[in-house]
Amino acid sequence: MSIPQKKNWKTKLHEIIYEADTPAGRLFDLVLMVTIITSILLVMLESVKSIDAKFHNILNVSEWMITILFTFEYIARIISVKKPFQYIFSFYGIVDLLSTIPKYISLIFGGVHALAALRALRLLRIFRILKLARYLGASNNLVRALKASRAKISVFLFTVVIVAIILGTIMYLVEGEENGFTNIPKSVYWCIVTLTTVGFGDIAPQTPLGQFIASLVMILGYGIIAVPTGIVSAEYTAQNKPKQELEKGELHLNTQSCPSCSAEKHKDNAEFCYNCGHKLQHA
Amino acid sequence: MSIPQKKNWKTKLHEIIYEADTPAGRLFDLVLMVTIITSILLVMLESVKSIDAKFHNILNVSEWMITILFTFEYIARIISVKKPFQYIFSFYGIVDLLSTIPKYISLIFGGVHALAALRALRLLRIFRILKLARYLGASNNLVRALKASRAKISVFLFTVVIVAIILGTIMYLVEGEENGFTNIPKSVYWCIVTLTTVGFGDIAPQTPLGQFIASLVMILGYGIIAVPTGIVSAEYTAQNKPKQELEKGELHLNTQSCPSCSAEKHKDNAEFCYNCGHKLQHA
Amino acid sequence: MSIPQKKNWKTKLHEIIYEADTPAGRLFDLVLMVTIITSILLVMLESVKSIDAKFHNILNVSEWMITILFTFEYIARIISVKKPFQYIFSFYGIVDLLSTIPKYISLIFGGVHALAALRALRLLRIFRILKLARYLGASNNLVRALKASRAKISVFLFTVVIVAIILGTIMYLVEGEENGFTNIPKSVYWCIVTLTTVGFGDIAPQTPLGQFIASLVMILGYGIIAVPTGIVSAEYTAQNKPKQELEKGELHLNTQSCPSCSAEKHKDNAEFCYNCGHKLQHA
Amino acid sequence: MSIPQKKNWKTKLHEIIYEADTPAGRLFDLVLMVTIITSILLVMLESVKSIDAKFHNILNVSEWMITILFTFEYIARIISVKKPFQYIFSFYGIVDLLSTIPKYISLIFGGVHALAALRALRLLRIFRILKLARYLGASNNLVRALKASRAKISVFLFTVVIVAIILGTIMYLVEGEENGFTNIPKSVYWCIVTLTTVGFGDIAPQTPLGQFIASLVMILGYGIIAVPTGIVSAEYTAQNKPKQELEKGELHLNTQSCPSCSAEKHKDNAEFCYNCGHKLQHA
Repeated sequence: MSIPQKKNWKTKLHEIIYEADTPAGRLFDLVLMVTIITSILLVMLESVKSIDAKFHNILNVSEWMITILFTFEYIARIISVKKPFQYIFSFYGIVDLLSTIPKYISLIFGGVHALAALRALRLLRIFRILKLARYLGASNNLVRALKASRAKISVFLFTVVIVAIILGTIMYLVEGEENGFTNIPKSVYWCIVTLTTVGFGDIAPQTPLGQFIASLVMILGYGIIAVPTGIVSAEYTAQNKPKQELEKGELHLNTQSCPSCSAEKHKDNAEFCYNCGHKLQHA
Repeated sequence: MSIPQKKNWKTKLHEIIYEADTPAGRLFDLVLMVTIITSILLVMLESVKSIDAKFHNILNVSEWMITILFTFEYIARIISVKKPFQYIFSFYGIVDLLSTIPKYISLIFGGVHALAALRALRLLRIFRILKLARYLGASNNLVRALKASRAKISVFLFTVVIVAIILGTIMYLVEGEENGFTNIPKSVYWCIVTLTTVGFGDIAPQTPLGQFIASLVMILGYGIIAVPTGIVSAEYTAQNKPKQELEKGELHLNTQSCPSCSAEKHKDNAEFCYNCGHKLQHA
Repeated sequence: MSIPQKKNWKTKLHEIIYEADTPAGRLFDLVLMVTIITSILLVMLESVKSIDAKFHNILNVSEWMITILFTFEYIARIISVKKPFQYIFSFYGIVDLLSTIPKYISLIFGGVHALAALRALRLLRIFRILKLARYLGASNNLVRALKASRAKISVFLFTVVIVAIILGTIMYLVEGEENGFTNIPKSVYWCIVTLTTVGFGDIAPQTPLGQFIASLVMILGYGIIAVPTGIVSAEYTAQNKPKQELEKGELHLNTQSCPSCSAEKHKDNAEFCYNCGHKLQHA
Repeated sequence: MSIPQKKNWKTKLHEIIYEADTPAGRLFDLVLMVTIITSILLVMLESVKSIDAKFHNILNVSEWMITILFTFEYIARIISVKKPFQYIFSFYGIVDLLSTIPKYISLIFGGVHALAALRALRLLRIFRILKLARYLGASNNLVRALKASRAKISVFLFTVVIVAIILGTIMYLVEGEENGFTNIPKSVYWCIVTLTTVGFGDIAPQTPLGQFIASLVMILGYGIIAVPTGIVSAEYTAQNKPKQELEKGELHLNTQSCPSCSAEKHKDNAEFCYNCGHKLQHA
C-alpha cells in the first residue's frame, strides 16, 4: 500500500551512506571498509622506520588521498543527515572528524613528535569497521550470552584482581627487591601475568619459597580459568536452547488469542480456550 | 504487626556499621570501601621508592588519617556489638585490629625493615571488601556450581601435582644441573610453570630429549585444562537449569487429565480443557 | 545379487591404492603412512647439523629409497586411475609430485641453499596422513560442531585482531621505542602474544603505565578465551544431543521380559506387557 | 546369613594391607600415604645441594628408616597375599620392590651418579597414592567422560602435532638459524610451545614475517584450545544427564492415553496399556 515517492538527491545520498539495503549502499560500505583498513595499514607502515625511510613519499601521498576521501565522506554525511549537529557531536561524528584533521594539522605544524600522538586518533577509524561487524550477524546469541553473563564475569574479574593484590604483596615480601619484585605494584603486575598464564618471564621468582608460592598462584590461575569459560558455556547453551526447542515443537504455544476472554499462549493443537472453555478460531 | 521501638544510639550505631539496609548503613559501607581501597593504594605507592622519596610526607599524613579512621571504626564496632569479645576474637575482628596497629607500632620502633613486614598485615583489610562482594549478588549459582565441583577439582589438582612431581623428576634427570634444572623441587616448579601454560622461560630445556619431553608436558597441560573447565561448565549448567525453566513458566504443564476427554498437559492455570472445552477438576 | 567379476590388474591396483576396504588396501595405506612419517623424520634429522654431519650417507640413502618408493607410487596412481589428468592436476596429485621431485632436482643442481627451500615442499606429504585421518572417524560430531560455530568463531577472531590493533597502538605510544615497542606492527604482535596468554617475554612493558595497560590486556585475554570455548561447548552439546537420546532410548525401562511374548524394555511401573497385553510378573 | 569365622593372622594382615573398610586398614593406608609423601619430600630435599650438605646425616637416617619400613611392608604384602608370585610380578609389586632396593644397592656400590638415576625409580612409589585416589571417589562421572572423549581428544592432539610440524618447518624456513630456529625439530618444539600458549621465550621470532606467522599460530592455538574443552564439557554434561533425567522421568514416552484406565506415558511402540492391559488405540 506504500505510494512510491520521488526521492531527492539528499535522501538518496542518505540511503547510500547510512543504509546498507541498496546495491549502492552496500558498495559504499565495502569501499569504506577497504579504505579504513588501507589507512590503518598506512599508519602501521609509517611507524616502521626502515619502511618510512624508503617509501616516505608514497606513504605520504596515499595518506593525503585517504584524508581527502575521508573529508569528502565527512562533508557528505553532514549534508545528507537531517539533524547535522546531532551527527557532528555524536560518537561516530567525532570519530569521523578525528580521522581527517591530524593530516591537516601536520600541514600547519609539521612536527614529528606531535604527529606520533595524532596518529593514534586516526586509529579510531577502526570503530567504523566494528559498526560494520553488525552485518556479519551470526553473533546475536553470543552477544546475548555475554550480556547475561556480564555481572558474573565482573564479580569473577573483581575476585581475580583482589587475589592478585594479596598474592602480589606476599610475593613482594618473600622475593624482595633484589629478585626484581622492586615494589608492590610491580609484584601485583607479576601476579596478574602469572594468574592469567601469560608468564612473560621478565620477572620470575628466585627463592625456593617464592617459587613455591608462584606454583600455587599458577595452579590457582589454571583452575580459575574454568570459571569464565563455564559461565559463558552455560549462558550460551541457555541462549541457544529456545531455538532448539522450536525445532522440537512442543514448548511453543501459539499466538492465538481467545475470542471470548483474550487469554493467550494456547497450545498449538488447542481447540478450546484453557481459560474460559470457548472454542478457538483458527486462521 | 511489629511495634515500632525507640532505638538507643548503640542499636542505631550497630545498624549503621553492621547492616546495609538503611541509607546510613549503605553510606557507611561505601565510605569504608573507598577508604580501604585508598589505604591499599597508599601501601602500594609507599613501596615504590621514587614515589616515596618525593611524596613521603603526603603519604605519611594520609596513612595516619586512615589509621585514625580505622581506629575509630574499630572502637565503634566494639561498643555497638552485643558480645564485644566474640567480635574481637573473630576473624574480621583480628583483621580489623591488624589493620590499625602497624602504624602505631612504627611510632614506637620506627624501624624501616620491620615496617615492610607489618605493611603486609594491612593488606588484610581488603577482606572487608570481599565481605561487601556479597552485595554484588548475581553469583549464587556460580558459588553453588563451584561448591558442587569442589571435590572433583580437588582430585584434578591433586593429579596435576603428582604429574608435575613425576615429570619434574624425569626432567631433572634428563636436563641436569648444567641446564638450570639444579634440583628436583626446581624441576617440579618448572613442570608446574609448563603444565599450567604459564611458561616464564627463566628455565627452559636445552637438550633435544628434554625439549621432546617438554613438548609432551605442554600438550598434556593444554589437554588437561579442559577438565576443570568441563567440570565447572557442566555443574554450572546443571545449577542454572531449574531457574531457567521457572523463568520460562509456560514450559511446565501440569499433570491434570481432562475428566471428559482425558487430554493431558494442561497449563498450570488452565480452568478448561483445551481439547474439548470441558471444565477441569482441581485437587 | 552382485555377480562376481574378474577384475583386471588395473582395477585391483586402484582398489589397493585408493580404497581401504580390502586387506591389501589397508596394508598399502599403513605402509604409506609409515613411509610418510619416516620421510618427515628424515627431513627433520637432516636439518640438525650435528646429525647430518655424522650420518649424512645413511640419511641420503634412506632419502633416495623413500623418493623412489614415492615415485613408483606416483606412477601407479597415474596408471590405475581412470582419468589420469584429473588426478595429476588435483590437489593430492600436485602434492604427490612435489613429494618426489625435490630429490631429483638436487641431483642436477645439488645446491645447498636451494635444497633448504625444496625440503619444505616435501612436508606437504603429511597431508596424505591427514587424508587417512578420515579412517580414525569418531570426530563427525566434532567436525559438525566446528562447522556450526565457524561463523561465530570468525566474528570472535576478527574482534580479537581489532582489539590487538587498538591496544597495540596504545602500547606503542605509551612504551615507545626505547622499551622494545619499536613500531606499531611489533606492538600489535606483542599484543597478540599477550592476549592469547602466550607471553614470550622477548618484549615486555617497562613503564608503570605500560604494565598497568598490559595487566588490563591480560585480564581481557584471560576473559575472552571463554568465548570460543563456550561456543564450541554449546554447539558440540547441541550436535551431541540427538545421538545421545537415541542411544538412551531404552533408558529408564526395566529388565523385565514378558512371560507371553518375551518383549523387553517395559516401563518401570508397567503391570502389563505393552506388546501383547499379558500380565507381567514382578520379582 | 554369613557365618562369622575366626580369621587367622594372615587373613587379618591381608585385610589391613589390601582393604580399607576396617579401622586398622584405613589407618594403615593413611600411615602409608604419609610415609610415601615424606619419602618423596626426602628425595626432593636430597637433590638440593645446599640442604644435602647441611643435613646429609638426618636425610640419610630418615631415608634408611623409610626404606626399612617399605621393606617390611613389601614382605608383609608377599606373606599375606594368596598368590605371592602374581603380586610380585604385578605392576604394583614391581613398583613396591623398586621403592626399596635403590638404597640397598647404594650400600654396595655407593656411587654418586648411579644414585641419581636410581632415585628416579623411587618416585614410582607415588603411584600408590594414585591408588588411594580411588577412595576420594567423586570422580566416576569425570573418568567416564574422559574415557568417552578419549578417541576425539586423540584425533585432536594428532591434528595439533601435524599442525605443529607444518608450521614449525615454515618458521624454520622463514626465521632461519640466525634467529634461534637452528633446525626443524627445534622449530617444531617452538611451535608446540606457542600453540599450547606456554611461550617460554627462549626462542622468539625476530623477522616481521616470522612474527606475523607467529601471530597466526598464537591465534590458532588460542582458538583450538576450545576444542578439547568443548569435548570434555559436552561429554561430562552427557554423563551427568542420566541422573537429571531420571529425576524428570518422562522422556521418550508418547502422549497416548489408555482408553480403559486413562494411564499415560506409554512407550512409543506400546500396543497395550502397562497399567490395565487394555489394547491401545493409535491415531
